Amino acid sequence: MGSFTREERIMRRVIGLAKRGTGMVSPNPLVGAVLFKDGIRIGEGYHQQFGGPHAEVNAIGSVESPSDLRGSELFVNLEPCSHWGKTPPCTRLIIESGIRKVYIANTDPFPQVNGEGIRQLREAGIEVVTGVMEREGAELNRAFFHAQTHRRPWVTIKVATTLDGRMATRTGDSKWITGELAREDVQWLRFAHDGILTGAGTVRTDNPSLTVRLKGISKQPWRIILDTKAALPLTSQVFSDSWSSRTLWYTSASPDDGRERIPVNEENGKADLAQVMKDLFGRGIHLVLAEAGPTLVSSLIRTGFADELIIYMAPKLTGNGPAFFRADSGMDRLADALVLEPVSSSAAGHDLKLTYRFRRS
Amino acid sequence: MGSFTREERIMRRVIGLAKRGTGMVSPNPLVGAVLFKDGIRIGEGYHQQFGGPHAEVNAIGSVESPSDLRGSELFVNLEPCSHWGKTPPCTRLIIESGIRKVYIANTDPFPQVNGEGIRQLREAGIEVVTGVMEREGAELNRAFFHAQTHRRPWVTIKVATTLDGRMATRTGDSKWITGELAREDVQWLRFAHDGILTGAGTVRTDNPSLTVRLKGISKQPWRIILDTKAALPLTSQVFSDSWSSRTLWYTSASPDDGRERIPVNEENGKADLAQVMKDLFGRGIHLVLAEAGPTLVSSLIRTGFADELIIYMAPKLTGNGPAFFRADSGMDRLADALVLEPVSSSAAGHDLKLTYRFRRS
Repeated sequence: MGSFTREERIMRRVIGLAKRGTGMVSPNPLVGAVLFKDGIRIGEGYHQQFGGPHAEVNAIGSVESPSDLRGSELFVNLEPCSHWGKTPPCTRLIIESGIRKVYIANTDPFPQVNGEGIRQLREAGIEVVTGVMEREGAELNRAFFHAQTHRRPWVTIKVATTLDGRMATRTGDSKWITGELAREDVQWLRFAHDGILTGAGTVRTDNPSLTVRLKGISKQPWRIILDTKAALPLTSQVFSDSWSSRTLWYTSASPDDGRERIPVNEENGKADLAQVMKDLFGRGIHLVLAEAGPTLVSSLIRTGFADELIIYMAPKLTGNGPAFFRADSGMDRLADALVLEPVSSSAAGHDLKLTYRFRRS
Repeated sequence: MGSFTREERIMRRVIGLAKRGTGMVSPNPLVGAVLFKDGIRIGEGYHQQFGGPHAEVNAIGSVESPSDLRGSELFVNLEPCSHWGKTPPCTRLIIESGIRKVYIANTDPFPQVNGEGIRQLREAGIEVVTGVMEREGAELNRAFFHAQTHRRPWVTIKVATTLDGRMATRTGDSKWITGELAREDVQWLRFAHDGILTGAGTVRTDNPSLTVRLKGISKQPWRIILDTKAALPLTSQVFSDSWSSRTLWYTSASPDDGRERIPVNEENGKADLAQVMKDLFGRGIHLVLAEAGPTLVSSLIRTGFADELIIYMAPKLTGNGPAFFRADSGMDRLADALVLEPVSSSAAGHDLKLTYRFRRS
């Protein structure tokens, strides 16, 4: 800890503030801001909600004596915006405030910013330092950067398994593999994502609501249902509960039952995932949590649309039932195995929460 | 840390000393000893090797001025022995040394001791405090206590798996699932055990040596081979390498090829594990590491002879190949699943080392 510079220590606080916006700002990035004058923190803020004021605006607005702003330093994890969007450009506000120096973790890959914010600040005589805690900032907004770069959502696969790698018993019993703490953690995971992706099989078998049930939380993620054959009944929870307007139904069929559908091509009964991803990106759904059975999970992995894998592993052995991943072919040798990057492991009660990233080939 | 009493802090050191005997003292327990006089540590020692002097003897022998022993305090994690074994009884030495007080973590369940050591000390006017760090002492010597109580070895199952729970690909490729650090850890695991248990299938497929290949280590564990049909060729490494005298060959057949065999009953081609365990216990093999395929691993688990499970889990997905545990029947619901007790999880390079205990029903 002692090896961080002053700038890095402050940027860590900025990133901590930014995280408070988790689940509320997507498809915007998570942004925090802190203001210092003569070595004293005079203000801070973060982007709290999509469409609401940016972090810089909140930080500047939090300063008790606006005259303090002249000659102050601004720390912000993302390059300030330079364009008129839902709000005026932050660069203008920063320049008008008399801030003398700006520290930034990451430049904004958004086409209308992408260096232009920094250019405007420098042109106005403001000293700009970039790359402070750049890696941590990139990690914080990995989904945002990923979506901007690849024009598709960041997809996290979540599975619950036994120690012997089963998602259920052979009779399909899967309630519950993991304990209460792990299941509550999944609720926060859902909250942090824009949409929950699942297949027709899971809806038919488990009839899940896929909603967030946490005290004080009213925002619900989209439910994204792949149902190429339009085989799911209207009575399924995702179509009939009070959040049914938050369900996106991808199907290749055209049933005449009044349900709003999103057409998708299919091959061998499976939805064209590239098409689904493109459509989700277009809707601003950039953080997708896949909670699905082995078929969809395996398709996401094989097609390269899976970015992260979170395994909740219970200290149980069933000795039968499906594993979460099935190779189609060509993985007959260990040398052919997919190698993932370990991110973290932690305990959730008696269960483990293991997080891995898929490597880009 | 600050909440330990003086006695507990010293007993932690005793247990740390005792651990240095790992791999060298079985079927004896791991024992350490520390001597204090007027608040100053005047000596310490541990049981270093089976048949060698006990911890108390080494500690007493380490004291520079033997006159210091009079009125000193002895900390030892196991009740001192009271019988003539390979060495004279430690109680006699303690009494003759003039030690005034003895702190003990655990009583010795060994039939010839079992409270008699404590009784002799007290009869000689020595104050005896028992139960100091009792739980930690019981954990340290869990295999010893287990063997004494159940009259059979402590069996640790070790498996290497992918994230999707496979021990190999469908073609049987299993070299190597885990990385170098995990494989080196397995070498230490072997060293800490008296014998390595495996089945004919693993010997036939992998032809492993099952030896310890660590610098400076010459002690080799027994290789315990279950080969009911006597189907394994004499050229297998475990029968032909320079440690072949350290191989125990359990078979139901009687081939006339000069190999020394241990007869075992079989049912459906599988060795009677109860008989094997009883025989191993009789040979003083009390710490067994099972490195086997799904058939033997599953048998050990189903018959209740498995005490611990260590999973080395690599960050890989193969999508095909066998899981390490197969239920025979009756585990069709999650409520029927075996529930294990988590002990620890740690990283070994990019792999995870997960340790669980089977619960006694």
